[in-house]
Amino acid sequence: MKVGIVGGTGDIGEGIAMRLSSRHDVVIGSREEEKAVQSSECCLETLTKKGLPCSVRGHTNQEAVDRSDVVILAIPFRHVEPTLSSLKGFSGKIVVSPVNPMEKRDYFVCVPPPEGSAALMIRRLLPPDARLCTAFNTVAANKWRALDEELELAIPVCGDDAEAKAVVMDLINSVPRVRAYNAGPLAASCMVECLTPLLLNIARFNKMRDVGIQFK
Amino acid sequence: MKVGIVGGTGDIGEGIAMRLSSRHDVVIGSREEEKAVQSSECCLETLTKKGLPCSVRGHTNQEAVDRSDVVILAIPFRHVEPTLSSLKGFSGKIVVSPVNPMEKRDYFVCVPPPEGSAALMIRRLLPPDARLCTAFNTVAANKWRALDEELELAIPVCGDDAEAKAVVMDLINSVPRVRAYNAGPLAASCMVECLTPLLLNIARFNKMRDVGIQFK
Repeated sequence: MKVGIVGGTGDIGEGIAMRLSSRHDVVIGSREEEKAVQSSECCLETLTKKGLPCSVRGHTNQEAVDRSDVVILAIPFRHVEPTLSSLKGFSGKIVVSPVNPMEKRDYFVCVPPPEGSAALMIRRLLPPDARLCTAFNTVAANKWRALDEELELAIPVCGDDAEAKAVVMDLINSVPRVRAYNAGPLAASCMVECLTPLLLNIARFNKMRDVGIQFK
Repeated sequence: MKVGIVGGTGDIGEGIAMRLSSRHDVVIGSREEEKAVQSSECCLETLTKKGLPCSVRGHTNQEAVDRSDVVILAIPFRHVEPTLSSLKGFSGKIVVSPVNPMEKRDYFVCVPPPEGSAALMIRRLLPPDARLCTAFNTVAANKWRALDEELELAIPVCGDDAEAKAVVMDLINSVPRVRAYNAGPLAASCMVECLTPLLLNIARFNKMRDVGIQFK
């Protein structure tokens, strides 16, 4: 599958690229193409050292959109609106939001926009035929980048387009020991977006690191 | 520990009573004392059959408060305000809210009150010196009632009174394979209360039953 990661040089983007690029054609996107190229070289080097195949390229964010079937928006909530207004070509694409609208106070807290969730806000900003799903919200960047770490994690996926959702779930399930779960329609994303600040609080108050979630 | 369960004849209350009454003195409370007595007899019979000790009694909700050090409010969100206004004696007690403000539409969704969470609403309804914690929110009633089922679950706990929180975490950790996690101050409860509708959606859309959560 051709996967583009907008904001692919950030923590989360790099983590996702590391895990997907041995199984899919990944384009790491960035506002600065040079940073994306560096990031892709780092990814290639790490995977090659481990004897893993790696198909990854660094490009601009716009090319990450244009060259891909699935576009992951690995950007902080505050960058969503300016980034999406600077990009085009989302029509008909499968778009994935791992975005969590949260703030750090004495603890982490979910602060959803007026639409109710980052996903519903992104829905409004994309063309109507973009096929939006929520997924990868709880990726603990350090753990995902460290290829020796076993993940054994659950990833909830929301979306209204059943076919797009199935593609995204297959993409997730292609990562060993990671399992995608259907968490309902796009409007249910608010509950998925709350998970990340919860997990950050759990990590902080229990002296844990890189906490993920499993459903039992 | 003396544990009172207000609304102890409901699904969640019975599940908690089943698991706690072999290790603690449990009072199952109900608006109708007779129902509470029946429920306690059923609990006693089940545990005795399994050769487990069991200390459980059925009483009114008011007696469940009066006879206990820790009071668990095992009531649906819509019953919180009328139930609390009909009871007294919470001063100085450790009070636990497993309450989730949620609605069932085509999927389950968190609908918090103006205070931001059920916990913060309950905080307003209790006397200022009641020691409120959020816990047991994600108890899957059927699984907790079926003593043969291994739980192996995480339970996040929120609260502002460190000592009360430690007591509640000890209470949770007394159930084999269940582990309490400090999830921050009471104001962070909104993220814990969102977990239950998320888990119900995961169960529904993935054909699972009695889904719980683990942190990895």
